[in-house]
Amino acid sequence: MSRAAADALRLYLVVGGLDDDALLAVADAALRGGVRCVQLREKTLGTRDFVARAQRLLPRLRQAGVPLIINDRLDVALACGADGVHVGQDDMPVDMVRRHLPRALVGLSVGSLDELDAGQALEVDYFSPSPLFATRSKPDAGVPLGLATLRAMRARCAKPLVPIGGIDAGNAAAVFAAGADGIAVVSAIVGVDDPCAASSRLAAIARASAGARHGG
Amino acid sequence: MSRAAADALRLYLVVGGLDDDALLAVADAALRGGVRCVQLREKTLGTRDFVARAQRLLPRLRQAGVPLIINDRLDVALACGADGVHVGQDDMPVDMVRRHLPRALVGLSVGSLDELDAGQALEVDYFSPSPLFATRSKPDAGVPLGLATLRAMRARCAKPLVPIGGIDAGNAAAVFAAGADGIAVVSAIVGVDDPCAASSRLAAIARASAGARHGG
Repeated sequence: MSRAAADALRLYLVVGGLDDDALLAVADAALRGGVRCVQLREKTLGTRDFVARAQRLLPRLRQAGVPLIINDRLDVALACGADGVHVGQDDMPVDMVRRHLPRALVGLSVGSLDELDAGQALEVDYFSPSPLFATRSKPDAGVPLGLATLRAMRARCAKPLVPIGGIDAGNAAAVFAAGADGIAVVSAIVGVDDPCAASSRLAAIARASAGARHGG
Repeated sequence: MSRAAADALRLYLVVGGLDDDALLAVADAALRGGVRCVQLREKTLGTRDFVARAQRLLPRLRQAGVPLIINDRLDVALACGADGVHVGQDDMPVDMVRRHLPRALVGLSVGSLDELDAGQALEVDYFSPSPLFATRSKPDAGVPLGLATLRAMRARCAKPLVPIGGIDAGNAAAVFAAGADGIAVVSAIVGVDDPCAASSRLAAIARASAGARHGG
């Protein structure tokens, strides 16, 4: 993975389930605040609407040099020319995604050390330990992993770890300290009054944490 | 479209929402009875399960020389190596499907003469006027078109028309007489005690109707 791609993962917004205008507003605010990667997750939209929404979002991200990752749907990623696909354990197997998107960013959610171990054989660019903490934005997310499991994952995995689930400005530094390369957030940016300020705060924590790790 | 592909459309089974064993049982019976094309439509399955189901179904169809069409999902079709994709008006636009599946069978549902006219500019292999009659298997299918509209569609369209919705052994001959090249059925095969016998009856009607049209 390139240095640019690794940097993109440092502050990663997952967004979906909004109408078009709300989505674009929160994306714009998040980009201004320092989000470097956006995943579009739409679990109830029809295919045509999902593609159209991704197509509306994409130019803004391109202009900001920020990759667009599509959740689950290789077809939507192919149709809109997205930069990557993020899959969960129930989504399309990674090797099938990779076959049709050889140069894309491909991420995989892992809910246990076993899933991480199984994933290490695959052509994955990053793993999202999920859910790290309890979360309101994905009711079916399962039992939280916690920081101890994240540390254990770090110890056995050289690829980027970008946990998701309940991460906010209050715990982000601890998440980086436990070994995360980046943080993926939903509610901490989408569910607040000022998504730009929230992104900016999280970006500052991410910068400081990366600096601390690299001896800066 | 090749003669073989056109023949395949004559009796076209749309199936989904069953468990794996029930799906394979009904598909086997339908193939024995004379179904020549199968569309897998799964609106609630996760991507991984949808792909796995298609992969289980595909070898049986290949062995019978019967194409597998995937409803809506280009990604699933790419992943399993299906023969085609069928899209509705809210699914992925046809040109996007075609770009990634240049040689596949691509079908489009049309719910009005206007939708048919708009579709004629696209690289579509066949149209499915839908719903032709009232149907129980797709509650959101809209207002039935009826045979008069099917005749009007026939008059302005040279490509194959394979209507769907409420077609059964009682009305199939009238559907062919109104200009259909094939009939797509769900309940008339999936929802009966003997799917093989039901398929066989429909296949006989389709053969007789094609014979009548070609002066045989």
